[in-house]
Amino acid sequence: MSRIDVTEKIITTKVAKGLKWADVAARVGQSKEWTTAACLGQMTLTAEQAGIVGEIFGLTPDEQRWLTVVPYKGSLPTSVPTDPLIYRFYELINVYGTTFKELIHEEFGDGIMSAIDFKMDLQREPHPAGDRVSITMSGKFLPYKTY
Amino acid sequence: MSRIDVTEKIITTKVAKGLKWADVAARVGQSKEWTTAACLGQMTLTAEQAGIVGEIFGLTPDEQRWLTVVPYKGSLPTSVPTDPLIYRFYELINVYGTTFKELIHEEFGDGIMSAIDFKMDLQREPHPAGDRVSITMSGKFLPYKTY
Amino acid sequence: MSRIDVTEKIITTKVAKGLKWADVAARVGQSKEWTTAACLGQMTLTAEQAGIVGEIFGLTPDEQRWLTVVPYKGSLPTSVPTDPLIYRFYELINVYGTTFKELIHEEFGDGIMSAIDFKMDLQREPHPAGDRVSITMSGKFLPYKTY
Amino acid sequence: MSRIDVTEKIITTKVAKGLKWADVAARVGQSKEWTTAACLGQMTLTAEQAGIVGEIFGLTPDEQRWLTVVPYKGSLPTSVPTDPLIYRFYELINVYGTTFKELIHEEFGDGIMSAIDFKMDLQREPHPAGDRVSITMSGKFLPYKTY
Amino acid sequence: MSRIDVTEKIITTKVAKGLKWADVAARVGQSKEWTTAACLGQMTLTAEQAGIVGEIFGLTPDEQRWLTVVPYKGSLPTSVPTDPLIYRFYELINVYGTTFKELIHEEFGDGIMSAIDFKMDLQREPHPAGDRVSITMSGKFLPYKTY
Amino acid sequence: MSRIDVTEKIITTKVAKGLKWADVAARVGQSKEWTTAACLGQMTLTAEQAGIVGEIFGLTPDEQRWLTVVPYKGSLPTSVPTDPLIYRFYELINVYGTTFKELIHEEFGDGIMSAIDFKMDLQREPHPAGDRVSITMSGKFLPYKTY
Amino acid sequence: MSRIDVTEKIITTKVAKGLKWADVAARVGQSKEWTTAACLGQMTLTAEQAGIVGEIFGLTPDEQRWLTVVPYKGSLPTSVPTDPLIYRFYELINVYGTTFKELIHEEFGDGIMSAIDFKMDLQREPHPAGDRVSITMSGKFLPYKTY
Amino acid sequence: MSRIDVTEKIITTKVAKGLKWADVAARVGQSKEWTTAACLGQMTLTAEQAGIVGEIFGLTPDEQRWLTVVPYKGSLPTSVPTDPLIYRFYELINVYGTTFKELIHEEFGDGIMSAIDFKMDLQREPHPAGDRVSITMSGKFLPYKTY
Amino acid sequence: MSRIDVTEKIITTKVAKGLKWADVAARVGQSKEWTTAACLGQMTLTAEQAGIVGEIFGLTPDEQRWLTVVPYKGSLPTSVPTDPLIYRFYELINVYGTTFKELIHEEFGDGIMSAIDFKMDLQREPHPAGDRVSITMSGKFLPYKTY
Amino acid sequence: MSRIDVTEKIITTKVAKGLKWADVAARVGQSKEWTTAACLGQMTLTAEQAGIVGEIFGLTPDEQRWLTVVPYKGSLPTSVPTDPLIYRFYELINVYGTTFKELIHEEFGDGIMSAIDFKMDLQREPHPAGDRVSITMSGKFLPYKTY
Repeated sequence: MSRIDVTEKIITTKVAKGLKWADVAARVGQSKEWTTAACLGQMTLTAEQAGIVGEIFGLTPDEQRWLTVVPYKGSLPTSVPTDPLIYRFYELINVYGTTFKELIHEEFGDGIMSAIDFKMDLQREPHPAGDRVSITMSGKFLPYKTY
Repeated sequence: MSRIDVTEKIITTKVAKGLKWADVAARVGQSKEWTTAACLGQMTLTAEQAGIVGEIFGLTPDEQRWLTVVPYKGSLPTSVPTDPLIYRFYELINVYGTTFKELIHEEFGDGIMSAIDFKMDLQREPHPAGDRVSITMSGKFLPYKTY
Repeated sequence: MSRIDVTEKIITTKVAKGLKWADVAARVGQSKEWTTAACLGQMTLTAEQAGIVGEIFGLTPDEQRWLTVVPYKGSLPTSVPTDPLIYRFYELINVYGTTFKELIHEEFGDGIMSAIDFKMDLQREPHPAGDRVSITMSGKFLPYKTY
Repeated sequence: MSRIDVTEKIITTKVAKGLKWADVAARVGQSKEWTTAACLGQMTLTAEQAGIVGEIFGLTPDEQRWLTVVPYKGSLPTSVPTDPLIYRFYELINVYGTTFKELIHEEFGDGIMSAIDFKMDLQREPHPAGDRVSITMSGKFLPYKTY
Repeated sequence: MSRIDVTEKIITTKVAKGLKWADVAARVGQSKEWTTAACLGQMTLTAEQAGIVGEIFGLTPDEQRWLTVVPYKGSLPTSVPTDPLIYRFYELINVYGTTFKELIHEEFGDGIMSAIDFKMDLQREPHPAGDRVSITMSGKFLPYKTY
Repeated sequence: MSRIDVTEKIITTKVAKGLKWADVAARVGQSKEWTTAACLGQMTLTAEQAGIVGEIFGLTPDEQRWLTVVPYKGSLPTSVPTDPLIYRFYELINVYGTTFKELIHEEFGDGIMSAIDFKMDLQREPHPAGDRVSITMSGKFLPYKTY
Repeated sequence: MSRIDVTEKIITTKVAKGLKWADVAARVGQSKEWTTAACLGQMTLTAEQAGIVGEIFGLTPDEQRWLTVVPYKGSLPTSVPTDPLIYRFYELINVYGTTFKELIHEEFGDGIMSAIDFKMDLQREPHPAGDRVSITMSGKFLPYKTY
Repeated sequence: MSRIDVTEKIITTKVAKGLKWADVAARVGQSKEWTTAACLGQMTLTAEQAGIVGEIFGLTPDEQRWLTVVPYKGSLPTSVPTDPLIYRFYELINVYGTTFKELIHEEFGDGIMSAIDFKMDLQREPHPAGDRVSITMSGKFLPYKTY
Repeated sequence: MSRIDVTEKIITTKVAKGLKWADVAARVGQSKEWTTAACLGQMTLTAEQAGIVGEIFGLTPDEQRWLTVVPYKGSLPTSVPTDPLIYRFYELINVYGTTFKELIHEEFGDGIMSAIDFKMDLQREPHPAGDRVSITMSGKFLPYKTY
Repeated sequence: MSRIDVTEKIITTKVAKGLKWADVAARVGQSKEWTTAACLGQMTLTAEQAGIVGEIFGLTPDEQRWLTVVPYKGSLPTSVPTDPLIYRFYELINVYGTTFKELIHEEFGDGIMSAIDFKMDLQREPHPAGDRVSITMSGKFLPYKTY
């Protein structure tokens, strides 16, 4: 058994039962972004959180225990994603990557935006010409230091 | 001559003169995000915008004309970026890519967030434990249609 | 269970029963192009469409439900396709890609042809020197905007 | 000197003089699709065509002669294109590739659509919800034969 | 079930029964080159041919039907083959590829040798210093046309 | 200076002077296949052959000397060739590679067709439905031996 | 069933029984180098050799027959090997590859060292500062010929 | 200036002057294998050795100094070599890699053959059926240790 | 059965029983670094060590025997790791690789730090601004020698 | 001009003048590790530090200014390094990567060792059996947080 098996069971059960991530997140008591990533095998749950998720998706105690083990992260099957929705984010990095770099360095100096001390929020933004997806990312700036 | 030559001249001049993208953007009259991407060879300028940029960076009329030609986009030298700052964004897609997909589909159905009808805003978010980088992305949702 | 399992079952059943995509499409009430892509795991069906497809291919209710879940798209096993028929399309992009780019930009300015708000039609074009395959693609032009 | 050098000179001159492919094609007396591909180094010109193109772009006799030499084809710098406009066509093959294959085989049997005995036409398709790019491709069907 | 399963069954049976491709071909009534390629999952058989092959290799009616479905072609597990015999052919393309190109263009002008309207013949060529493999390939020349 | 420089000079001169490989081969006294490969930097010439080639293409003594040095072979810029003519040969290996393997082993046992002790002949094969390219390859069979 | 299955059975049995390749080779009557390669799926055995190997590893008649079929060669899972022992050999080619090339050409002219008409011998070389691995390779020189 | 420039100058001079590696090695006082690798930019020379090599190839003092700097090693342009002679060595690793591994471990236990504390000797081995290339490699065995 | 199967059983059992590597190491009598690598399929155990590990994880005698066989090393599924923790080490090599090279050569001359005669120690380093991971690596310097 | 040009000038000057990184670091007043990385184009210098480095290596004011611009990081030409010294570090990640992951998670929970808030120290460790390279890395542990 591995975390991947547990992730597949969660996804299969979600489709069979017609569950929603937002509802799962409400029961877990975390944001829908973090909860979805955790159920998809990218984050580590506490024993209590694993118990709630286990109840929702009918996981055995062993399967729940896997949710509390730090997973080998990375959710995509290829280094350049083929799925159109996910590719658009990859394209944004290709087109705007050097822009991100220039503007963060102009504002903060040498360093990075943390992808660990990080949170995000995804919302529908109503718009007369067609609703928009709005994503706000917030990551701590980590400066390079001399030594 | 090519757009890449013009981009290199812009970057070289920026370092030599110690310019700031925010100031360039103010003179161009667009956001700093769009202006930086344009100066880095990813966006197309109007003749007027090209004139302003040309004046700032000392571009010849031919070089300014290149700014008005649609560029071959993509600003990164490798498919998996090696620069730590840019890699962190790639990592976010690797870890959160399937989460983006699940949540956008849960909210909107099948389709994508446009990377074309798209804008973003990058700000410093003051925080007692260390300031944070805050990025807000907004892209129109484009639904797949049956036919 | 996953969408891939459902796709394989559909293909296996199609061979065993000797079905035609055009007939499947007629029963689903959509074009043969969209219907084939949907049955091959690239599009999302409504519950009603899934019911019809399920009846044709003998799918269980759970399998039908998978047809209504947005799939992870991308139908090819390698980034450069090995199948001669599919490779010819890849070759067209290699040979004509920059031509597509130049002519679309000459006509519309900076932007793209949408691959989402998109439809296509594939027909036999009779010809004395040998019949031809005729494919008409129609995608909405999406302009880049400044901000 | 190589064909690539000639292509670069043509592109540089086109930007400097503000020429249009449609006008070049009219003078060459071929479609804008073929003419653009030829000027971008993908097709072979007759001596007469090379003379016209040479006059438009100010090419030397040696440079014109290169236009009449069959080029090493392939116009893209990477196997998966990074430019958003060109990538959309690659995505179409990824999503619809197996659909192309199924429908062509259903209509014609085993074989391919020729990418050599091939022509295409790219037009603006006016539409109230935003104009569309319409591309019609026509390639001879070539059947596999037994022997 | 898929064509790959049928191919594997054919190969397994061939080893178990100690069959020869030349004998299979004689019964199918086609060349040994085409017949082998077809049994290895690269060509499409008629129902009658599939019946003969099915009898030889003990295939079920469903497995025979798969032989009449156009396969996803490409028989090698890696883009650069590791098997020494097959690699030698890849090496020939690497060393002689540009020579093929120059000589075919010198003789025929711009175009290709068809890999579809194609046949080949493989024979032992006796030689005092060691017998030789002789392969004759014949493919229709397909010219690029202007339009 | 390197062999690549000499190859480029030969190609440039050939275009400028409008030479034919068949004529070059006649003067060198070897087949057009070997001579073309040699001029394209894949074979090693004797001093005498280098002198003839040098006279034809106007090479300096140093450049002629490079023709007598064993080159680093491999004439293609990418592992999967993008040029349609050359790709067709790669496709033949992909489709027929396992067929070559089976038939050569059936005839000769374990071993390979040499790509070194090898010659080939490329001819136009007149045909009422369109002329064909005929290529005959002959390579010594090299058996694996036990030890 | 495939040769890979037979190889895996041989390896599993070897571990379970604690056999040594040198002893297997002694019974087969060939060198330990050739015998090991053969048992690992890289060489073809005679029926008699297959019988001996089959007896040692408890193979069925069908499994023994697979040993007499020419295998698809190549024993490594990745093009750049990850195992440190095997990587060192790859590194030697990277560092010394051009040296091999220069010295063999200096001694023999244009051609290659055969990897088919090839044998090798691997021995422990006692040394006060630590024993050494000594490998002697012997491959027939195959000259390129003109034609 | 870089080591690569010096290597290119050495190679160019060697061709122009018609030098032999064996003669260079004799003057340097090291084996032809080590000397060739060093001249090709893979090994580090002492100041004295650099002086001798500098004299032979007409290197400036600065160029000689580069020979005494440890180079970035790796002499091949692609991870799978295209040159037939060098590829044969790569093929040997592909076919015999697991055999090397098994036999070295059987003789020595877990560890590697050093590619650093390593030497080799390349000789012509006369043979009535055609001379052979004989290469003897000797590398110290380095055992993995527990800690 | 293979070493990979044994590794998977160890990992599955560790999660099910909630074991700690430090405790396993204490019972094996080796460092936690070496013991973890060994249990993850990268090192070879003595029969005695295998017995202890077998007892802890409930391995059969055959499974224990696999622990004493030298494994095919390399623990990562992709050449550029996707897991953020492991990627950070890859990034360090990308950013600091040439620095490692310069400083080791400055101190020791040409050669390498052995990855075989190597040990490491990983500790928590308490720090008021947040605890740190401290890793000390020690590898024997192996000099390149002339010959 | 770019940072890469400045890096190359620094390296060329270092060889020509025979400088040592340790001496450069002493004058800059930082560790030899950080100073070397900075001079090799991986770190950002203050104006003052750039002045000192500029004086040592004879850089123009413009070149010194480039040292104060945040560089595009990544110092290796290939994703799997070919240089033996640098490869050994890559091999350590391949062999020990999952061990790093297990032990850091066992000690700290889910998170990473920062490669930004990071320092390292490289020393010679005298040893009777041959001196050793000792590297101590210290990176802040960054925990993943829920939100």
